[in-house]
Amino acid sequence: MTAKLARNMRRGGMNLHNKAVRGNLIHAPVCGQIEALLDALILIDEAGVIAEVLPGCPPRLCADYAARGALVTLRPGQYLLPGLVDLHVHAPQFPQLGKALDLPLDRWLMEHTFPLEARYEDVGFAAEIYGRLIDTLLANGTTTALYFATIHLPASLKLAELCLQRGQRALVGRVAMDHPQTCPAFYRDASAALAADETRDFIAQVQALPGNVPRLVWPVITPRFIPACTDELLQLLGALATQTGCHVQTHCSEGDWEHQHVLARTGQSDAAALADFGLLTRRTVLAHGNFVSAADMDLIGAAGAGIAHCPVSNSYLADAVFPLRAALDRGLHVGLGTDIAGGASPSVLENARHAVTVSRMREDGVDATKPAGSRGVPGARIDFREAFWLATAGGGAALDLPIGQFAPGYMFDAMLVDQNAPHSHLGVTADDDAADVLQKIIYLVQRTNIARVWVGGRMVHEI
Amino acid sequence: MTAKLARNMRRGGMNLHNKAVRGNLIHAPVCGQIEALLDALILIDEAGVIAEVLPGCPPRLCADYAARGALVTLRPGQYLLPGLVDLHVHAPQFPQLGKALDLPLDRWLMEHTFPLEARYEDVGFAAEIYGRLIDTLLANGTTTALYFATIHLPASLKLAELCLQRGQRALVGRVAMDHPQTCPAFYRDASAALAADETRDFIAQVQALPGNVPRLVWPVITPRFIPACTDELLQLLGALATQTGCHVQTHCSEGDWEHQHVLARTGQSDAAALADFGLLTRRTVLAHGNFVSAADMDLIGAAGAGIAHCPVSNSYLADAVFPLRAALDRGLHVGLGTDIAGGASPSVLENARHAVTVSRMREDGVDATKPAGSRGVPGARIDFREAFWLATAGGGAALDLPIGQFAPGYMFDAMLVDQNAPHSHLGVTADDDAADVLQKIIYLVQRTNIARVWVGGRMVHEI
Repeated sequence: MTAKLARNMRRGGMNLHNKAVRGNLIHAPVCGQIEALLDALILIDEAGVIAEVLPGCPPRLCADYAARGALVTLRPGQYLLPGLVDLHVHAPQFPQLGKALDLPLDRWLMEHTFPLEARYEDVGFAAEIYGRLIDTLLANGTTTALYFATIHLPASLKLAELCLQRGQRALVGRVAMDHPQTCPAFYRDASAALAADETRDFIAQVQALPGNVPRLVWPVITPRFIPACTDELLQLLGALATQTGCHVQTHCSEGDWEHQHVLARTGQSDAAALADFGLLTRRTVLAHGNFVSAADMDLIGAAGAGIAHCPVSNSYLADAVFPLRAALDRGLHVGLGTDIAGGASPSVLENARHAVTVSRMREDGVDATKPAGSRGVPGARIDFREAFWLATAGGGAALDLPIGQFAPGYMFDAMLVDQNAPHSHLGVTADDDAADVLQKIIYLVQRTNIARVWVGGRMVHEI
Repeated sequence: MTAKLARNMRRGGMNLHNKAVRGNLIHAPVCGQIEALLDALILIDEAGVIAEVLPGCPPRLCADYAARGALVTLRPGQYLLPGLVDLHVHAPQFPQLGKALDLPLDRWLMEHTFPLEARYEDVGFAAEIYGRLIDTLLANGTTTALYFATIHLPASLKLAELCLQRGQRALVGRVAMDHPQTCPAFYRDASAALAADETRDFIAQVQALPGNVPRLVWPVITPRFIPACTDELLQLLGALATQTGCHVQTHCSEGDWEHQHVLARTGQSDAAALADFGLLTRRTVLAHGNFVSAADMDLIGAAGAGIAHCPVSNSYLADAVFPLRAALDRGLHVGLGTDIAGGASPSVLENARHAVTVSRMREDGVDATKPAGSRGVPGARIDFREAFWLATAGGGAALDLPIGQFAPGYMFDAMLVDQNAPHSHLGVTADDDAADVLQKIIYLVQRTNIARVWVGGRMVHEI
């Protein structure tokens, strides 16, 4: 028991925090390590911030919270985990989730993705789709999402408003893309100046949204990727990043075509070019990064920027596997992204599982006709502990936000996993230790196992 | 309308078949092609065999079936698909699903798998676990499963009995493994003769199970894999296969260790050695086959044997990706296996999805530092149409059973997918054609979308 808590108790419970949750907790504050607390107690203050995490449950304190109706007690077979952080979501692409993945990237973009995104000029359409998307992500335990919207300011603002209404922590970008040679006439910004002006307006409007205090939704400067933006636009957005200190998101070295295109146009890699444009900051998140070099990693690390590893998507639309092990060993900020709809799953846990899978395949290689030692990249694997950190605390650190773990000062963003939910695949046995429980959760949890979700102490989903 | 049906109708409906299902059907009778029938009618006879598939719905005929209470009509948003075929399940490993996958194969086997399998000496334990497994597989749409049980005859028979009771089409093997150098003392057959005798007894007992007419459950000759069996045992089991004509299952060229071990011991590959032992037949299913050569494929093709491709498992416990494209191009019999618990999913659809994924990764390779053309195996990809065929008709053909498609003479083994089920991720839109619907089903269906399952015309699962 801490000194502060002891003081509270001496005061006869008058200084109790707002609410408390009691049960078995599993989290991963440090990459590669998990911590499990049995029958622990988390105290949460009025602002939704974790005040204390007690490794046991003092009976009188629990009774005090229970008497006020302010205690949630987990049942046997239930586990409290940090909410999941999705670092890369194309919100408008939700209707094409699971579709057209048999097409090459150019046809996927031109025949499906861009025509779909263009429809968000209709704010009513946007409201319908975005509402369903937010509900779907919350139901999958995603308490924080970093969203690409579209080039339409009203629809992008609608996404921010809906996140605020539904209580999802969100970072939302109005997409900027003005390059006449790579963006279709039916879906691009009319000029660099217009795109930058609308981005500036969008930032102001999101920051001023009624109810957005304490901040739940942040605006994000969002050049789609270098090939889709003129140099003029990239310069304007880089200046805006410097002026505002806002988050930045873009794609970086995703596949062969993009990587080579940027090299040919700028004479340097995505990461280097972004740094020159002023777009590589502590609050930048780069989606993918499959083709980053060691020098790129140094640049990214020096800036403190983050990488959104999107393993499900990368198995389709990239041309190689992200060097995750190397990035972790350098201490880069890395988290996970679903990359809806390049990735055909709305679940960060499915991406955590697939992050382990593709790291194993990167290590082993794919072609049995080659000698065992030279098929893949030796030592490339990660395990479920690292994958879970990526999905939670790693994602939080990449966003420079106090989320993703159960510790004082962090937001109470959490999900309750129930192995006894109907239709459950999760079968924890008496032989399983906490690490086994977590591994089974990562591999077997379905949406129906996620019984409750909280963001900033507020319950935002319940089955 | 067919001539036969017209005759039935002329007889005033007296000769109507047993029951009928009306709705939108999707199946894949030919590898790489899908067929969708809107508002079709399937007529099913008393033995659970499909009598007719009508591309439209004659009103009077539907009314006749409806009047008898013998018509199931699908609602909008529901789709009828063939039941799924799982060609490789280690039934006793179900409790460790999703666990210990961070360990290397030898520790996975010796510390977890073999000690767990040894517990099935207790038939009560077996009954409890096997019952839950069968329920789980049926709920995931698996209408036919090819099971490895354990070395225990009573528990293996219990698995066969439970499949029969619950109505799952099943092929069950009492595992034979007698090699003292590779099998632990606590879990191996005492001698080759004993293992062969018990296999012979098991075959007779399964064939004689009360109620197993028409045959729903088949016995399978099951040498675990060459390293676990002495030459004497393999010879005895090969002779038994010739005498009985029973199905055979074993592992084949799964990873580096096993492949090299067999080469060193027998001087030839698994496939060649199995052929010499008389174990490579039209009714043999080889699990994995990741390291098969072109010559092995010729042998397998000449025998008409099948391969159980287990992509989820292979990403962990194999060391390369199965050359699926090459196998399909040669016309080999190939289907999918979950490989519970080497594969951490009970879902054949998840394996279908992952079969596409790993084929894309085999094509692309994993290491961006290599030149684009030499990272992987060009042309290796399959698409969702081929994956769905593998999961249904391909699996049926591999087993030499009339299952996996909607055609007269085939068993009515089917699942009803409901996109409007609670907690659904499946969002079919007005823009989606039948191929899009199927692709979304493969990527997004969860267990809760599988609303009903039939085997041989009998409904065996309903949410």
